Amino acid sequence: MSTPPTPIKQQSLADLMRALGAAARAASKVLAFAPEELKNAALSHAAAALRGSQAKILAANELDLRPAAALEMSVAQLERLRLDGARIEAMATGLEAIAALPDPIGVTLQKWKRPNQMRIRRVSVPLGVIGMIYESRPNVTADAGALCLKSGNSVILRAGSESRRSSAAIHECLVEGLIRAGLPAAAIQLVPTGDRAAVGHMLADMAEYIDVIVPRGGRKLIERVQREARVPVIGHLEGICHVYVDGTSDLEMAARIVLNSKMRRTGICGAAETLLIDAGAVQTHLRPLLAVLLNAGCEVRGDSNCLLADPRVKPATEQDWHTEYLDAIISVRVVAGLDAAIEHISRYGSQHTDCIVSEDAAAAEKFLTHVDSAIVLHNASTQFADGGEFGMGAEIGISTSKIHARGPVGVEQLTSYKYIVSGKGQIRD
Amino acid sequence: MSTPPTPIKQQSLADLMRALGAAARAASKVLAFAPEELKNAALSHAAAALRGSQAKILAANELDLRPAAALEMSVAQLERLRLDGARIEAMATGLEAIAALPDPIGVTLQKWKRPNQMRIRRVSVPLGVIGMIYESRPNVTADAGALCLKSGNSVILRAGSESRRSSAAIHECLVEGLIRAGLPAAAIQLVPTGDRAAVGHMLADMAEYIDVIVPRGGRKLIERVQREARVPVIGHLEGICHVYVDGTSDLEMAARIVLNSKMRRTGICGAAETLLIDAGAVQTHLRPLLAVLLNAGCEVRGDSNCLLADPRVKPATEQDWHTEYLDAIISVRVVAGLDAAIEHISRYGSQHTDCIVSEDAAAAEKFLTHVDSAIVLHNASTQFADGGEFGMGAEIGISTSKIHARGPVGVEQLTSYKYIVSGKGQIRD
Repeated sequence: MSTPPTPIKQQSLADLMRALGAAARAASKVLAFAPEELKNAALSHAAAALRGSQAKILAANELDLRPAAALEMSVAQLERLRLDGARIEAMATGLEAIAALPDPIGVTLQKWKRPNQMRIRRVSVPLGVIGMIYESRPNVTADAGALCLKSGNSVILRAGSESRRSSAAIHECLVEGLIRAGLPAAAIQLVPTGDRAAVGHMLADMAEYIDVIVPRGGRKLIERVQREARVPVIGHLEGICHVYVDGTSDLEMAARIVLNSKMRRTGICGAAETLLIDAGAVQTHLRPLLAVLLNAGCEVRGDSNCLLADPRVKPATEQDWHTEYLDAIISVRVVAGLDAAIEHISRYGSQHTDCIVSEDAAAAEKFLTHVDSAIVLHNASTQFADGGEFGMGAEIGISTSKIHARGPVGVEQLTSYKYIVSGKGQIRD
Repeated sequence: MSTPPTPIKQQSLADLMRALGAAARAASKVLAFAPEELKNAALSHAAAALRGSQAKILAANELDLRPAAALEMSVAQLERLRLDGARIEAMATGLEAIAALPDPIGVTLQKWKRPNQMRIRRVSVPLGVIGMIYESRPNVTADAGALCLKSGNSVILRAGSESRRSSAAIHECLVEGLIRAGLPAAAIQLVPTGDRAAVGHMLADMAEYIDVIVPRGGRKLIERVQREARVPVIGHLEGICHVYVDGTSDLEMAARIVLNSKMRRTGICGAAETLLIDAGAVQTHLRPLLAVLLNAGCEVRGDSNCLLADPRVKPATEQDWHTEYLDAIISVRVVAGLDAAIEHISRYGSQHTDCIVSEDAAAAEKFLTHVDSAIVLHNASTQFADGGEFGMGAEIGISTSKIHARGPVGVEQLTSYKYIVSGKGQIRD
């Protein structure tokens, strides 16, 4: 007697996420050994698909930006979310640039021979499956998908729900590229629901399927990741970046660097949030530096020295030194010299990117050595904190973690390695 | 009116652990910039202290080994716990060998110039504070303390409670070395309580003070770490290591490698736990390989082919393929060729160390590429899975993690890096 067919249970979110995980794991085993040519072909086809789907992507973006949803977003969020023809073209060009990078997989990183004649090679391999959790920038869908593909990893993308439709339209182009190149479509998957519980599954229940989580977003996301993650994380934390200007610095250079560090783009993690001014530079530098910021439309929240120097300055609170504004706002404080600057950065910074402007080489050297940040700069804008500007082609984010990748995370940073030992029957004594 | 003095609250474990953490963090800031000479002097002084304290260490070890405690331990645990003059001398020599390694800190790993003339250097830095959690091997106290010191990290050691007295006696010698070299004693701290809740604090509550956890122990510890850790982990997981012998292999070489991989030392993570034999080698290799193991006193748990081949073989269960025996026991299975061997290792292995014995270069290449383990070997014993044998001087363990360090974790793997950017006033367009 045959049993009646069991009714199909409604697929729960947990089941859905596990299915994504299993598909990603299976795809990763193909991708790990995919020839460079296929990976690059998939990227080129995806770039073509992006260009060919411009109208469709912009229509999806319009829906994400429709007033009801947009009402809840800040101007900065809207700015990051909005797409236009130029931004879509930039995404396509970005995919082509990633295709043009050297294949980071299968590279012999080191090799040596042991006294017993065993040969050891350290060879780069993919990480496996990457879980990428990000907020409202649809272009991250293209960048992250492409960087993971190039580095032989499959990826589960979880886009911010505000950018859901835009990300889905971009994701379709990536999948088209994969399929046209004959690679598994599941190499790049997008979580198809805005349910925030999906993030919880990625962080806590999918250790079997996800090798590393790359979060990219604001403080709330980061705090959630730190609280819930049971999977290794390559942390993209907030960027509370400082510029310290000392009394030896060239004022014109200091003004140029401070203005660029803060105002070139205020919404990126490498934007300066706090300006520290050496007490020895108060007479010469404070007023002009405040003026250049204020005149450019930047709100300045300063200590008592700043309040005295310019009536347009608002008073800073303790909270300001802890704040990543991502906006045209800066906090400014006078500090008692180099050691006090280092101490302030150690206390309030996020170990992301910090800069000294100084003509004193010894002071610069001390700052560069003692400030414990992923990127430290001497006489250059903090806005150079970027994989592209570093010459790494592209990046998935800037890591403030100390393990694995620190600083810009490009294709090389999305790899691991294995040791391959070749012998002729050697045994250990 | 003066208030009466508040009675001192009894120090809770949480307070104790936080105090250790704060002291470690403060010490790490000194250690990060400590000159190579001081770090090496501390190691030499510690080696001398170990030699001078032999009687004291052995007396402490006797207490750890006293019958009441030892009754609860396995023979393998007792073997790992027991010290003698030679083992203490080996620890001292180990410290001197670590002192002789090049300083891994402050090394320029890479440098380049950008088109805008900015110079970028990637320079090695310490991780910060390492939390080392390990089981009953007292020598790990010396090795881990020394490796962390050499790499400019401070460390909080949490030794297994069974080795508490031995570890404390060894730790005293390390502290003597630090003090004599003028380095902070808190650079190497030992959790002074056997309370297992201390491990919970290290894993979950001390993210502010501990940058990375390095666990080294059995499955129970690893599972606890995976469940509770809120701090990044460099995972030292179990080693379910395989040797796959194919039909082209030289029988004499196969026997030598299999015997050494299993029996040289059975209690180390690189010891083989499963032997896979190509179906094409059953007629020629199976019986002799079983005999060489059985004759050496190894228990063999095999599949039906093995049971037929030798009456001394016991039947293997599904659980055996999942088991790290760390003992003179091996599971043996006949597999239908290379792909089936790779599939078995993918399913049951722990991505630690796996070996192929074969004269077929193409088969070996496929095995080495497709087996996703930290160490893969061709025609050499799995017992070479060791930092010393790799020429890395010494190791804190073998990582089966894919992020940060994979394989042997020596001084270089205990570092991170920073990017130092030198400009002349460059700003970003």
